Amino acid sequence: MLGNFSYKNATKLYFGDDSLKYLNEELKQYGKNVQLIYGGGSIKKNGIYDSVVEILKANGKNIVEDGGVMPNPTLEKLYEGAKIAKENHVDFILAVGGGSVCDYAKAVAVSAHCDEDPWDKYYIRFEEPSCEIIPVGCVLTMAGTGSEMNGGAVITNHKAKLKVGHVFGEEVMPKFSILNPKFTMSLPKKQMIAGIYDIFSHICEQYFSGEDDNTSDYLAEALMKSVIHSSLIAIDNSQDYEARSNIMWSATWALNTLISMGKTTDWMVHMLGHSVGAYTDAIHGMSLAAVSIPYYRYIMPYGLKKFVRFAKEVWGVNPDGKSDEETANEGLSKMEEWMKKLGVTMKISELGVTEEMIEKIADGTMILNGGYKQLTRDEIIAILKESL
Amino acid sequence: MLGNFSYKNATKLYFGDDSLKYLNEELKQYGKNVQLIYGGGSIKKNGIYDSVVEILKANGKNIVEDGGVMPNPTLEKLYEGAKIAKENHVDFILAVGGGSVCDYAKAVAVSAHCDEDPWDKYYIRFEEPSCEIIPVGCVLTMAGTGSEMNGGAVITNHKAKLKVGHVFGEEVMPKFSILNPKFTMSLPKKQMIAGIYDIFSHICEQYFSGEDDNTSDYLAEALMKSVIHSSLIAIDNSQDYEARSNIMWSATWALNTLISMGKTTDWMVHMLGHSVGAYTDAIHGMSLAAVSIPYYRYIMPYGLKKFVRFAKEVWGVNPDGKSDEETANEGLSKMEEWMKKLGVTMKISELGVTEEMIEKIADGTMILNGGYKQLTRDEIIAILKESL
Repeated sequence: MLGNFSYKNATKLYFGDDSLKYLNEELKQYGKNVQLIYGGGSIKKNGIYDSVVEILKANGKNIVEDGGVMPNPTLEKLYEGAKIAKENHVDFILAVGGGSVCDYAKAVAVSAHCDEDPWDKYYIRFEEPSCEIIPVGCVLTMAGTGSEMNGGAVITNHKAKLKVGHVFGEEVMPKFSILNPKFTMSLPKKQMIAGIYDIFSHICEQYFSGEDDNTSDYLAEALMKSVIHSSLIAIDNSQDYEARSNIMWSATWALNTLISMGKTTDWMVHMLGHSVGAYTDAIHGMSLAAVSIPYYRYIMPYGLKKFVRFAKEVWGVNPDGKSDEETANEGLSKMEEWMKKLGVTMKISELGVTEEMIEKIADGTMILNGGYKQLTRDEIIAILKESL
Repeated sequence: MLGNFSYKNATKLYFGDDSLKYLNEELKQYGKNVQLIYGGGSIKKNGIYDSVVEILKANGKNIVEDGGVMPNPTLEKLYEGAKIAKENHVDFILAVGGGSVCDYAKAVAVSAHCDEDPWDKYYIRFEEPSCEIIPVGCVLTMAGTGSEMNGGAVITNHKAKLKVGHVFGEEVMPKFSILNPKFTMSLPKKQMIAGIYDIFSHICEQYFSGEDDNTSDYLAEALMKSVIHSSLIAIDNSQDYEARSNIMWSATWALNTLISMGKTTDWMVHMLGHSVGAYTDAIHGMSLAAVSIPYYRYIMPYGLKKFVRFAKEVWGVNPDGKSDEETANEGLSKMEEWMKKLGVTMKISELGVTEEMIEKIADGTMILNGGYKQLTRDEIIAILKESL
């Protein structure tokens, strides 16, 4: 049954190999001072930075530079970005990069004019912004987080060893996002692989909760099948536009709330992955991958019906002559096989986690409701150990 | 491959058995004079009219009545509604009903302040509105057209024997829509059946075009499977909330442009159905149903790959030991079987079409591109005759 909900997503998307040109139209709607946010500088090598700067200049904008956003944006960097925005009277934030850059841009947007510590307000108390919010636009250069069409902004606090996500409301979501699948073609293979697994995990985490046969579950299966179909092609040949375009579009719809409408969700893989990430600074998608199979094998008996459906619908497992457990396990084995082919990290030990860290990672793992089984600390430890 | 496109859909949706209460919040954003648009009066019998009026009065609105919208809203009615809106200085239009009522409301919204004949401007020249547009909100009482989250507005011109749809832009789309699956429970069975087939046809018409394995096709299959799964349950028991909620939600996503993004579409079933409708005033979904199987059987050889995929993915046809044609035909036979179980009209003769009307209906059928085979007049006649 679809539970009660409301839905609105007003982000405008420009999709395709010519989509950057629409930046001209969009910029006209915003003020002169533009904070240009980007990551480690790959956009300077592949020419995207130059193209964007040219469009900004042609539209008479003052560019306020804010580069160097790291894969897991830190609280220190957020303080710095908010200060830049405030001091330069920034009217508009343009994020050029992947999910981390988009997430960070949204966090800056709600922090620049915030009169208290944004960590306390947004990441401890999870309050909504009460200050002026700077509008954000995105030029996406990788596929994965779905940050281009949602209100999510994950920030890592290294001092507290916490990586926390806040999903902000409509007014913080990007006003527009430019999605050019070609921009993903110059990504390092490892990043693309991690992005693909991040997408898949987003879908799983909304799917593996509840037992109803609702429209959202059908849509989730469709996105999974599309990602599985395109993933190996996209990794095998970075220039395959068809595969890259399907991956990019699936990523957006995997985490813009659509497939969670009217149902419960289970974000425990992200909670485990975030805690691993806070201790290792691992690539986000890889930390999710390394905990997924142990987690799903553990909770499978508690949500057997859904895991059987997953096996049949997503992986084409033939259930004839098999027990439900066997069918469900075969589905997870097929998923594991695909993950290995894709090339994700299957063990947290490969991400730098040692046996001594396990208890602390467990303590740093936020325990959420919504899954087929609410985990205890001991169960979290057991799952993490499975991945050593 | 996903072609280039842009996407934005800012309609806010309130979904669930308590969703009408959100009308209070929304009304606060609009002016005092509200044109209340509804159909033949069933909302007066089932209590929805009273509930809506109570909310309008509680919010201090002046109600301008505009009831009696017919299943295929006519141009005469549109002139009448536009006059009502203009003379009463209407600030906001509230449509309470199904797709026809929502379509008509949007047409009134762009016609009230239009300084020329709206038929000529919107339905012959397909121009965009250049006048003030009155904002529209919907309270949906049946599932089918998707009008609650798109810019479509179909109007029938009886004098010209034409039923024409214009898909307006973002500014004409409903600002909000209230979707309460319970409101569909008092619908006559025949209307619910027709609505379900309308949904299915929307999905098919976006799916059966192009040969690519893209994300939009996977999403289309998901919606089809969800509709098929819930349809017979919903018809068998009008009080089954789960089935009714899935049908209602699938309807919205079947025609809000998502599943057509980046691909071509083929709206010939609607074109044929519209022309049948202009001659018979048949229920929209039934006129689509009556032409579908003859049309798809005819074009199948030209789009064989997609019809094979349809058979396997949507209907679970096992292709082992069969030719592609056999697999594709088995898929269409399963669809036909489902349609009969659902109880749709399978023959245009049952809708009142006689052999003498065929040529005129063919002449009134707009021939569109996008399908696997562009039809000639003779082919249209042959397809229509198959349905006699």
